[in-house]
Amino acid sequence: MSRRKKIYEGKAKILYEGPEPGTLVQYFKDDATAFNNKKKATLEGKGVLNNRISEFIMLNLGRVGVPTHFIRRLNMREQLVREVEIIPLEVICRNVAAGSISQRLGIPEGDALPRSIVEFCYKNDSLNDPLVAEEHITAFNWASTQEIDDIISLTLRVNDFLSGMFAAVGIRLIDFKLEFGRLYEGDMVRTVLADEISPDSCRLWDIETNEKMDKDRFRRDLGNVTEAYAEVARRLGIMKEAPRAANDEAWK
Amino acid sequence: MSRRKKIYEGKAKILYEGPEPGTLVQYFKDDATAFNNKKKATLEGKGVLNNRISEFIMLNLGRVGVPTHFIRRLNMREQLVREVEIIPLEVICRNVAAGSISQRLGIPEGDALPRSIVEFCYKNDSLNDPLVAEEHITAFNWASTQEIDDIISLTLRVNDFLSGMFAAVGIRLIDFKLEFGRLYEGDMVRTVLADEISPDSCRLWDIETNEKMDKDRFRRDLGNVTEAYAEVARRLGIMKEAPRAANDEAWK
Ligand SMILES: Nc1ncnc2c1ncn2[C@@H]1O[C@H](COP(=O)(O)OP(=O)(O)O)[C@@H](O)[C@H]1O
Ligand SMILES: Nc1ncnc2c1ncn2[C@@H]1O[C@H](COP(=O)(O)OP(=O)(O)O)[C@@H](O)[C@H]1O
Ligand SMILES: [Mg+2]
Ligand SMILES: [Mg+2]
Repeated sequence: MSRRKKIYEGKAKILYEGPEPGTLVQYFKDDATAFNNKKKATLEGKGVLNNRISEFIMLNLGRVGVPTHFIRRLNMREQLVREVEIIPLEVICRNVAAGSISQRLGIPEGDALPRSIVEFCYKNDSLNDPLVAEEHITAFNWASTQEIDDIISLTLRVNDFLSGMFAAVGIRLIDFKLEFGRLYEGDMVRTVLADEISPDSCRLWDIETNEKMDKDRFRRDLGNVTEAYAEVARRLGIMKEAPRAANDEAWK
Repeated sequence: MSRRKKIYEGKAKILYEGPEPGTLVQYFKDDATAFNNKKKATLEGKGVLNNRISEFIMLNLGRVGVPTHFIRRLNMREQLVREVEIIPLEVICRNVAAGSISQRLGIPEGDALPRSIVEFCYKNDSLNDPLVAEEHITAFNWASTQEIDDIISLTLRVNDFLSGMFAAVGIRLIDFKLEFGRLYEGDMVRTVLADEISPDSCRLWDIETNEKMDKDRFRRDLGNVTEAYAEVARRLGIMKEAPRAANDEAWK
């Protein structure tokens, strides 16, 4: 592989300069972190699974007209994406109470919410990604009112699409986190979906057993983390076979 | 079974008075018709499959907050629904050109449309369900502007949800037809999804082979109609086993 410029190394992915201006290569690591980096591990094969699952979802979202950064998967761990200016918000959409909303508002985990709720957190690790209101977002100029409107309507479309996708394979979509960015095309700017959609960024419960099939397995030490991610991939028809041995070249 | 009052017999279903005021029983027949009743057949087991597929879809749409008439399935051929005042429109949502839009506008079947298109036809068999514009709908008072807005936004939500649902099981959602009704609750009126969502009312193509898995198999004499419907049910995890013999009591 030729030397490429590393643009950014995050907790779960590395961004490299892409082959053309305006493109990036997103490399999916096996690293898992939780509680803002306080808990760490390496989960053999996770990056491969997230690369494939995120590819499948972004591709299908693109087909129904949700604009995304995704161009194409390059190999087992990398995908080519359009470079965007990331809007510094973690956009969370919740259908069922779990995680921070349960703690913050005292809603038992598993309770259906009165309706889908879209939350914004300011994406800033050193501040622990604090919850913010639209008031803060516009006051500090993180996003314009028009961008917030676009983000909310795209997030609700993604919620409907993913709810259908997972319902078809016996999985309940509890919540998920999205990131959006500004795509500059000539003198136009568009708001597009960026980053990834994977069991790292969704809560997914088996519809029959309520078994968790997402990163909470890691956060809560439930074990079988990659096995659960592989089961999500398998149900979506993405990976027909069971994951191969970790020392298989393809998994590197 | 106790004697019940038949309210209406349509081409594919019969409506009976329900057990409580404001409810109806929707009975799914095996009858298939096309080209406004010019072509007719009985397809053993189709009603059972449509009852189950429509139940699965309506239930899951209800879970994401799309209001529907569906209450619960009663048996292999019947479901309990809320009685609504049907808005006399067939609401068609198209992602890919097929059927009448291909003919009307000369777009080759299979061409992706520039964006999802919502069409309205006036539901009237003797007129052949003619295409109408919003102008006609409001002029003839078939629906109010507010109702049209609700119908369009619900239809686009259903499109996102169904696109995800079918993508998860290797099926491309080409187009589908919905009906909506007015649900009176006290002095409130709500627009809710009614009728059915099934391979009778959708165009569904296998994502790999483009094979048709919907009523076009009947319209175009492609054979294996119920087999294709059963495959849709099987992929959605609705019916684990292959359909049983037509003389099985459960299929009546
Ligand atoms: N298309 C894109 N263009 C630019 N940056 C992106 C794009 N997609 C995702 N990113 C950013 O790349 C990083 C992905 O790496 P990750 O390990 O998730 O980082 P982090 O630890 O910051 O969450 C994130 O900071 C994300 O905001
Ligand atoms: N919840 C409901 N309340 C009242 N009518 C309904 C409801 N759901 C569907 N319908 C109507 O019941 C009929 C269903 O039978 P069908 O065989 O599809 O009839 P058609 O030949 O008119 O299409 C349709 O006319 C449809 O508009
Ligand atoms: Mg990240
Ligand atoms: Mg009908």
